[in-house]
Amino acid sequence: MTPTRSFASDNNSGVHPLVLRAIQDANHGHAVGYGDDPWTRQAEQAFAGVFGPEARVFFVFLGTAANVLSLNALARSYHSVICARSAHINVDECGAPERHLGCKLHAVPTPDGKLRPADVLPVLHDLGNEHHNQPRVISITQSTEFGTIYRPEEIKALAELAHSRGLYLHMDGARIANASAALGQTLAGATRDLGVDVLSFGGTKNGMMYGEAVVFLRPGLADDFRFLRKQGMQLASKMRYISAQFSALLADGLWRENASAANAMARLLASKAATIPGVEITRTVETNAVFARIPAAAVEKLKREYFFYVWNPEPAEAPEVRWMCSFDTTEADVRGFVEALGRAME
Amino acid sequence: MTPTRSFASDNNSGVHPLVLRAIQDANHGHAVGYGDDPWTRQAEQAFAGVFGPEARVFFVFLGTAANVLSLNALARSYHSVICARSAHINVDECGAPERHLGCKLHAVPTPDGKLRPADVLPVLHDLGNEHHNQPRVISITQSTEFGTIYRPEEIKALAELAHSRGLYLHMDGARIANASAALGQTLAGATRDLGVDVLSFGGTKNGMMYGEAVVFLRPGLADDFRFLRKQGMQLASKMRYISAQFSALLADGLWRENASAANAMARLLASKAATIPGVEITRTVETNAVFARIPAAAVEKLKREYFFYVWNPEPAEAPEVRWMCSFDTTEADVRGFVEALGRAME
Amino acid sequence: MTPTRSFASDNNSGVHPLVLRAIQDANHGHAVGYGDDPWTRQAEQAFAGVFGPEARVFFVFLGTAANVLSLNALARSYHSVICARSAHINVDECGAPERHLGCKLHAVPTPDGKLRPADVLPVLHDLGNEHHNQPRVISITQSTEFGTIYRPEEIKALAELAHSRGLYLHMDGARIANASAALGQTLAGATRDLGVDVLSFGGTKNGMMYGEAVVFLRPGLADDFRFLRKQGMQLASKMRYISAQFSALLADGLWRENASAANAMARLLASKAATIPGVEITRTVETNAVFARIPAAAVEKLKREYFFYVWNPEPAEAPEVRWMCSFDTTEADVRGFVEALGRAME
Amino acid sequence: MTPTRSFASDNNSGVHPLVLRAIQDANHGHAVGYGDDPWTRQAEQAFAGVFGPEARVFFVFLGTAANVLSLNALARSYHSVICARSAHINVDECGAPERHLGCKLHAVPTPDGKLRPADVLPVLHDLGNEHHNQPRVISITQSTEFGTIYRPEEIKALAELAHSRGLYLHMDGARIANASAALGQTLAGATRDLGVDVLSFGGTKNGMMYGEAVVFLRPGLADDFRFLRKQGMQLASKMRYISAQFSALLADGLWRENASAANAMARLLASKAATIPGVEITRTVETNAVFARIPAAAVEKLKREYFFYVWNPEPAEAPEVRWMCSFDTTEADVRGFVEALGRAME
Repeated sequence: MTPTRSFASDNNSGVHPLVLRAIQDANHGHAVGYGDDPWTRQAEQAFAGVFGPEARVFFVFLGTAANVLSLNALARSYHSVICARSAHINVDECGAPERHLGCKLHAVPTPDGKLRPADVLPVLHDLGNEHHNQPRVISITQSTEFGTIYRPEEIKALAELAHSRGLYLHMDGARIANASAALGQTLAGATRDLGVDVLSFGGTKNGMMYGEAVVFLRPGLADDFRFLRKQGMQLASKMRYISAQFSALLADGLWRENASAANAMARLLASKAATIPGVEITRTVETNAVFARIPAAAVEKLKREYFFYVWNPEPAEAPEVRWMCSFDTTEADVRGFVEALGRAME
Repeated sequence: MTPTRSFASDNNSGVHPLVLRAIQDANHGHAVGYGDDPWTRQAEQAFAGVFGPEARVFFVFLGTAANVLSLNALARSYHSVICARSAHINVDECGAPERHLGCKLHAVPTPDGKLRPADVLPVLHDLGNEHHNQPRVISITQSTEFGTIYRPEEIKALAELAHSRGLYLHMDGARIANASAALGQTLAGATRDLGVDVLSFGGTKNGMMYGEAVVFLRPGLADDFRFLRKQGMQLASKMRYISAQFSALLADGLWRENASAANAMARLLASKAATIPGVEITRTVETNAVFARIPAAAVEKLKREYFFYVWNPEPAEAPEVRWMCSFDTTEADVRGFVEALGRAME
Repeated sequence: MTPTRSFASDNNSGVHPLVLRAIQDANHGHAVGYGDDPWTRQAEQAFAGVFGPEARVFFVFLGTAANVLSLNALARSYHSVICARSAHINVDECGAPERHLGCKLHAVPTPDGKLRPADVLPVLHDLGNEHHNQPRVISITQSTEFGTIYRPEEIKALAELAHSRGLYLHMDGARIANASAALGQTLAGATRDLGVDVLSFGGTKNGMMYGEAVVFLRPGLADDFRFLRKQGMQLASKMRYISAQFSALLADGLWRENASAANAMARLLASKAATIPGVEITRTVETNAVFARIPAAAVEKLKREYFFYVWNPEPAEAPEVRWMCSFDTTEADVRGFVEALGRAME
Repeated sequence: MTPTRSFASDNNSGVHPLVLRAIQDANHGHAVGYGDDPWTRQAEQAFAGVFGPEARVFFVFLGTAANVLSLNALARSYHSVICARSAHINVDECGAPERHLGCKLHAVPTPDGKLRPADVLPVLHDLGNEHHNQPRVISITQSTEFGTIYRPEEIKALAELAHSRGLYLHMDGARIANASAALGQTLAGATRDLGVDVLSFGGTKNGMMYGEAVVFLRPGLADDFRFLRKQGMQLASKMRYISAQFSALLADGLWRENASAANAMARLLASKAATIPGVEITRTVETNAVFARIPAAAVEKLKREYFFYVWNPEPAEAPEVRWMCSFDTTEADVRGFVEALGRAME
């Protein structure tokens, strides 16, 4: 039985009231399908306001598609995409990138989910050799699947390496809001200004019902994207309902407010959990994720009260688990969870 | 400028108030993602109520995906799918079936969008010949892209032919509600009982915001479908919001009420339009679509007031156009449109 | 039991003695794999001699691959390839184009296997509409699958139409030798000079053991082709044995000699067969193919002596059959076959 | 300039005289295309003699295709294939498996190119989780890309693990002859009897001109394979020339003789090279491959006389290189190469 608010994932949360209101407000009369409507134009202008007039934005239904179609715009089947081994595109999309692009993910083990130039350089030996997939895209996740954050200079270094060798830099920004909020960046400052070429901009985990955006930050990359989106089964007929949500999220900094709230609750959760004997916080808590190692018996007990994911089942006696905070997580939620954790650890 | 309610497509309509209400009601607390939630269980039970306990239902975001993934469950790349040339899968999905399945659509020209056994038989010569794609699925659209309807015995005949040769019968039911309402059928009577193996069940065009269902009507076909759905980029994290919509649509026959309303308005529109000199109704109006041939000059004039699609641009001087009615189309809407049509024809 | 020389297909023939000799001569010592060897350089020079210094040639194993990889260099998955319905890429490759490219073949019915601008124009309505595959390549077969030939001005007209709308012209030249020989053209005159962008150049049906060539006739199209070839499973490790065969075929006009011989025997066969009462020659015999309609009973009788293909099984009582002549077909072979045909027709 | 016989790869060698003879002998008269000919029937019987009457064999052009199509018969796009990171399918096929199957390779780092059950077990955690590709095939290379050999009990253990969890065991046997010769096994004893389900049987590297075989060792796996082969662009029209080569290779143990000769020369090369100061033999020499670490300067010098591959460019000052022996490598060739190596190391 799941309690009212859980810690399994930030996609377990509901829809922010202002986002839901925007949906309701969009429900008047008819609108031309597939995005040729006033709500979509308004949302596109909101993105232009945030990322600049040269940016081009396309809405899709979900994060896996935002990633896969972003990469589809950049790479052909004989290319490869370099990513961290823990990347969502490598681990959690049931092979959608390989299937849809036909290309190889060059997944590099990293301790903290972050790629560094030294991880990328050996792969570049493949350039020009017809027996190997040709490196074409570096894909990073911000914030990472471990809740850690790339610092601006780290992203810049990857962008420079990429561009110097004819590669692109893609950012899986399913939680870019959490990272930008944590670092006090604007969204453009967190992406375009650091050299990111294409961004998967997350909405669902930050208070939307559904909908993500692919944002092209460099001219010339998006020319054929509308065909890729349609063929990729991601062109919404009643587009206005995605667009209206994004307008709400970008208006008045709701995206930052939501992300900051989630981040704050994760810090609170980690600090409280860390005081319980036997709970080891395993990753630096920089955004809205808390990773911990607890005894297998405690996992089992705690799962009776709260659903959550075991991230690494090994070692079997003390697996690593993940707890996520959402835009609507309250201090009371955290207290309740930590109490349950305390009981489970007894 | 689009008027409040238009006739371009039934996907230009908004969301039915009861569906929107269901979405709002689902917006309480957290829910486990990806469909392991009470709303989804309830919707699955609603489908079981309609299609029987052996049916298995999976929700996806949109109609193209419902079709492509249905076929993906039935066919491998060396198979072929037999369909009418005018089929949505052949014409309006930017090649998504070919791309995702890798297989060939064997598209047969038909005068009215309906396939008949005689259309299928010549294709079956390919069976067993390694140089040709192997026929595996017959895919029909009910109601068709021309608004026409298969009669029960016509579907039965196709199902029998398919099953006798080891093929499956798929139904693109983006508008199955309109057909079932027109024929006074139950949904199971319109599909399962006639031999349909897999159904794409449409929601968006019948009053939902987004969401379609893949319904497996014969045991043993759905075993791996959840992997196909995830890899096919159609697994919604906040699934409850699709599920709640379907529950609303199936409750108290809302699906039939919406479809009947749209059908009635199409009949009204056709009968009124037919009285205008020079307007030729080109297809039997059996559901919510009206096809007509009008002079190119009238098309241009009418488009200044209403957006709609030219279905066949040839002959250039008198193209065939399509007008669709929706669940929320009113008699006043029809009157307004017919008046504009009359002005355009002057 | 197949007789020594049959009429089923020009790929039933063996290897020309000069080609086999070239293979034996190449079997000395070691050579670097994958084409970085003297035999391949020599063959590339032979192609440059024939098609000009700007042409770029790549060897593959078989004709299906030459076609699929040619198209792969020109089209992405959201594109479409316009071809005649009877095209080898549409009918006889078990859907390899759809599977490997992911794109749609827009197959147009034509009476004689030849495409004309009027067949192509309606498809171009799709340009720019994201719901439809985008026309990208016109693919023609020379000589066609019916043994007919495009005249130079017919190819020019298609090339001009293609280029004026941003499309490419591909030629499936599995039997380009037969066409060029029949028309007295040089190979460049039959392709490059008429506007063909990419050519599948056939070797196997004209006396080689295995091996076809993809020839890029316009600069800038081949840049990534070596990756497509490798990934497309067509990069031969012991490349020299393909290269040596091509050098032999291009040297001293062996290609034309072989093709002319086959063409002459087809003319002889057709003229003799036509004198037998009840044998209807159904296609103009312009190269090495003879199509005929004979009673089903005669098909059965003749098949006891000779294996050949029924091209169109309908009408069942008088199917259309195909007889092909090869580079090594002799007048005695033709006489023997025609005598058997005469017996079968009694 | 490449010397007469080099050490770059066993595919740099030519064609064994008996194999070439078989090709010449097959060049008489016409034969039905695509494998319905006496030479192919004879070769199939030879395989049945070696692998048993239940084995089914299919010929293809090259090793990449043998691997990719083997896997294609076993796995769908949502599956994964577990292999060693150094596997040919993972490293040297330009992503052909990902592109053609659409599935993920789960490539596990191993020190010696050999997979062990402990490498596989963690991947099996993915079973049943729709977010992850489903493990379906374990693919091993025998002999490995490092020239090392699995012992019979090692293969048995992998087969048992695979079968106990519903997976298959595939063997990339591009050099199965070398391994079987080294271990004194029959070909069936090296594969079928140990639990291998599907085998890529190598011909090209063991004295053939072109051609590899996919051998299904367990009933029921090959039913649709002929469609996969045709669509996978690997159905040779003049099949007899591949078949005749295989008949020659299997007759009188030519395969073993060729492989043993290559293995012996590798042992000789390694033993001689190891005596040169500064040359470090890095892998156990069990078949026909010799891996060594030599100074970068020596690499450069030696490459002026012999072409060969740097296997691992790092560390830059002392890369790891690979030298392969072939069926036709002589003691004199080895002496000449070792002398050149000695000069390069000075």
